[in-house]
Amino acid sequence: MTRVGVNGYGTIGKRVADAVAAQPDMELVGVTKASPNYGAEAAIRRGYDLYAAIDDRVDEFETAGLTPSGTLDDLLRAVDVIVDCAPSGIGARNRAIYASHDTPAIYQGGEDADVADASFNARASGDVGDADSLRVVSCNSTGLSRLLAPLDEAYGVEKARVTLVRRGGDPSETDRGPINDVVPDPATVPSHHGPDVNTVLPNVAVDTAALKAPVTAMHTHSVNVTLETEPSTATVRRLLGDETRLFLIPEVANIDGAGALKDYAADVGRPRGDLWENCVWEESISVQGRDLYLFQNVHQEADVVPENIDAIRALTTDIPREESVALTNETLGIGLDSLLADGGTVRDPVAADD
Amino acid sequence: MTRVGVNGYGTIGKRVADAVAAQPDMELVGVTKASPNYGAEAAIRRGYDLYAAIDDRVDEFETAGLTPSGTLDDLLRAVDVIVDCAPSGIGARNRAIYASHDTPAIYQGGEDADVADASFNARASGDVGDADSLRVVSCNSTGLSRLLAPLDEAYGVEKARVTLVRRGGDPSETDRGPINDVVPDPATVPSHHGPDVNTVLPNVAVDTAALKAPVTAMHTHSVNVTLETEPSTATVRRLLGDETRLFLIPEVANIDGAGALKDYAADVGRPRGDLWENCVWEESISVQGRDLYLFQNVHQEADVVPENIDAIRALTTDIPREESVALTNETLGIGLDSLLADGGTVRDPVAADD
Repeated sequence: MTRVGVNGYGTIGKRVADAVAAQPDMELVGVTKASPNYGAEAAIRRGYDLYAAIDDRVDEFETAGLTPSGTLDDLLRAVDVIVDCAPSGIGARNRAIYASHDTPAIYQGGEDADVADASFNARASGDVGDADSLRVVSCNSTGLSRLLAPLDEAYGVEKARVTLVRRGGDPSETDRGPINDVVPDPATVPSHHGPDVNTVLPNVAVDTAALKAPVTAMHTHSVNVTLETEPSTATVRRLLGDETRLFLIPEVANIDGAGALKDYAADVGRPRGDLWENCVWEESISVQGRDLYLFQNVHQEADVVPENIDAIRALTTDIPREESVALTNETLGIGLDSLLADGGTVRDPVAADD
Repeated sequence: MTRVGVNGYGTIGKRVADAVAAQPDMELVGVTKASPNYGAEAAIRRGYDLYAAIDDRVDEFETAGLTPSGTLDDLLRAVDVIVDCAPSGIGARNRAIYASHDTPAIYQGGEDADVADASFNARASGDVGDADSLRVVSCNSTGLSRLLAPLDEAYGVEKARVTLVRRGGDPSETDRGPINDVVPDPATVPSHHGPDVNTVLPNVAVDTAALKAPVTAMHTHSVNVTLETEPSTATVRRLLGDETRLFLIPEVANIDGAGALKDYAADVGRPRGDLWENCVWEESISVQGRDLYLFQNVHQEADVVPENIDAIRALTTDIPREESVALTNETLGIGLDSLLADGGTVRDPVAADD
């Protein structure tokens, strides 16, 4: 039983905490929060032991009626591994604290790659050896790695070119923008996202151009991959449909965007309406010569959550990768499989070249 | 055991269906859908019997792999009451079909008041007598009625004046607007919302001015109520805090808008992140002389759901209203009560007049 702490019970942290609590081989020892807001209250409601992330704020929690079980130091003394879910940049600052406790740590993709011994994606990255810390790559890099790894294995990737239309902020982030623009961000091309993918898939050539848009629900990727061979469209659809962390949206479902996707996630009972899988519009998958095209959406709040669980096992146990992924998928219920007639099968597109 | 059918498994219908299924004195016989899209699939996944809302579309469902249990006529033959959750205006057209089956019907607020024998809100409307049909008033009218009824009872309402900043569309409605404007809608003032409130609260004077904004999560109401007496701010906060279908958002929770509200709803385990209660910013509640001011948010997808359950009981049983409301609240888990220190108590505002 691996004793796990989550430092930072925010957008990612609360989801990682729920996922840890659902694992048969893990114990969620506790979570930290910097302030006694509604998120802290929710942690208590769920029965999680709450710790103050910042020592001198214990009083603030007590005043709000949420007496913490201790501070971050107390939590670190009680765990085998800490998952850092602090805001971007704070993880690097927390590194020394974790080191002082000799506590293995997992960081998020908002940190630079050198924060940890290795970067991680369960589908794409290699053996982590004797790493004492791992960094789960960002939501966008996770989405791209899951897609590019099977394509490279099956057909060889000559070059991937991806436009990332990123959400401006999460649903509760009222201080983010843009309100009414699509902003090149960064305007320099290629963006840093391609190199981030290379931290887990070093041999796949990928250039990315990134924008941000006035939406909060999901990122949207417009993907082109020039392959080394010429598979048929139907074959690629079948390959991607067989990946457990890719969900092919059947055309007949009439899901036209992130709103309907989240609605569907809630309909099928997903907690928080979370979509842990990449969501690929099945009819968008098209091969023209050696050029593959598709649209996919990535739920920035959720897709890294199963990767964190697999990272915990990679860091602290000898459980083989595939076994970990299968267990994570089973416990969380990952692997949407539409009941709609076209959902489970592979259709040839109208203008198929095969 | 009341046998209930839901005609129209959309935004409201799927929520009403879930709520019916959770009642100990009701049986959900089945739901209808016009097309075999993702919503229809989700109904099957939940184990609900699916009926084709339109007779000649049975083939379409079968082609999509979702064989229906029958048509609307078949469903009507099997139920004691039908809840019409069809799009606005279709309910009126369905009326003759329900009449031909002698099936008592409940309509939604998108229909004109004359669609049913009486309009309904569990907190505000009077005894429904021997009505054979009821119309649950709209989400906005539901939100206003729940607020104005206790204020009128306790202090007398001389006049209420409310600006409704309505959401442009639901999260999955990608064909709605505005994208980047706040639109008077209708530009005529007062709007029809006040008279709609009067269908359940005939003796409360209320003028409304309505806008729509580029948001999808909730409606926002800026409320002024001139009272006949001069209660203190603290007293009004206490009165409203005691209402089970009003949730007073504690200031310390740091919930600043609909995004954080929906986030909180998901945090506390609400299905679909639903907020069945009016959400009133506690610190906004302020009395100046006889003028009460406050901001409240109303979740347009959810607040009418418990009202539909109570309407079913009002139409088909002799269960007293209060007993019905208590049972609905208990089975759904209505009545958010913050654990935060300020949440359950009444604070005097900084510039209180009492």
